[in-house]
Amino acid sequence: MSKGEATKRQILNIAVKLASMQGINGLTIGDLAKKVGMSKSGLFAHFGAKDRLQLKVLEMAAQKFVELVMRPAFQEPVGEARIRALFTNWLKYIEGTDELPGGSVLIAASIELDDQPGELRDFVKNAQWELIHNIEKAIQLAIEVEDFRPDLKVREFAFSLYSFVLGYHHFRRMLESPDAKQLIEKSFEGLMIFARNKNR
Amino acid sequence: MSKGEATKRQILNIAVKLASMQGINGLTIGDLAKKVGMSKSGLFAHFGAKDRLQLKVLEMAAQKFVELVMRPAFQEPVGEARIRALFTNWLKYIEGTDELPGGSVLIAASIELDDQPGELRDFVKNAQWELIHNIEKAIQLAIEVEDFRPDLKVREFAFSLYSFVLGYHHFRRMLESPDAKQLIEKSFEGLMIFARNKNR
Repeated sequence: MSKGEATKRQILNIAVKLASMQGINGLTIGDLAKKVGMSKSGLFAHFGAKDRLQLKVLEMAAQKFVELVMRPAFQEPVGEARIRALFTNWLKYIEGTDELPGGSVLIAASIELDDQPGELRDFVKNAQWELIHNIEKAIQLAIEVEDFRPDLKVREFAFSLYSFVLGYHHFRRMLESPDAKQLIEKSFEGLMIFARNKNR
Repeated sequence: MSKGEATKRQILNIAVKLASMQGINGLTIGDLAKKVGMSKSGLFAHFGAKDRLQLKVLEMAAQKFVELVMRPAFQEPVGEARIRALFTNWLKYIEGTDELPGGSVLIAASIELDDQPGELRDFVKNAQWELIHNIEKAIQLAIEVEDFRPDLKVREFAFSLYSFVLGYHHFRRMLESPDAKQLIEKSFEGLMIFARNKNR
């Protein structure tokens, strides 16, 4: 990695952190310049206009999600174990890390951008569909190794799982519900009981 | 209602509509002034600073939710019928109306404000808890009239229902998934089967 690229990556990391708290629309070149100790024109030289920076931030957020949630889950054996790993990693991600103190940039961006057509919205939509398709693949494999029922509807399972994660995000982050974690864990175990192959 | 109040209400209706598309942080006095054909200082005379206007918009959005979703549901007989009415009204609300073309102001505001402490966040948090407590009351009554199982966990049911609504919001508005409605209907019917009193 060249020095220029390393600097760019460092700035992007800070920008992703800011976006996780202020949203992708709330991210301003001015705030970012202050945080990284650079002039606005210096930032502009690295990224161009604001929408270029926003797109880069969304790309990095999607990449972080793959690294923290998807990749480690796909290293687990196929079947229920992989679905459980995916779930556990996803919760940790929602709870926020040092890198992403404000939780999921992509969930927030989904809400911010849903009425805002353009390249940013298209990127988030595609990234979310890719995530869903990967979850569906993991569910399909769990059916194939006979952990899950052969008649399980893959898309319906993915919808329920995704919904519970959004519910957890809401109950934990906005409602500050002290039982948020128990609630999603109970819902997830219910989903497992529903999905499991009873003939095994 | 005095003429001043009627004007104020009319402006608020337009502001809620704008907020449903641009979010509560994206709502600017400038945009609103343009939409209502009034000067910025004229608007200021009605509402004061931006955060006053935002709070009024959130209050009106909460009121609209009660009028469109909760009140008609609570006119249905207690039990499963009321829960079904609540669900049906909520979906219609999420799908957007002429008044709220961008869907739920409060769901969007929840994401926007979750890392932004202050009066606006407190208002949304309280409004959402009130909603959850009302849903829990309706579930409790369904248990009392023996539509639902006596051992049903009211909070867990409310969490699942809320999660599915958030999932629907996401699959419909961001992912533009053509099967979003079937997915939530399937999930809801699963929840009904789980909740129903088997001894009746």
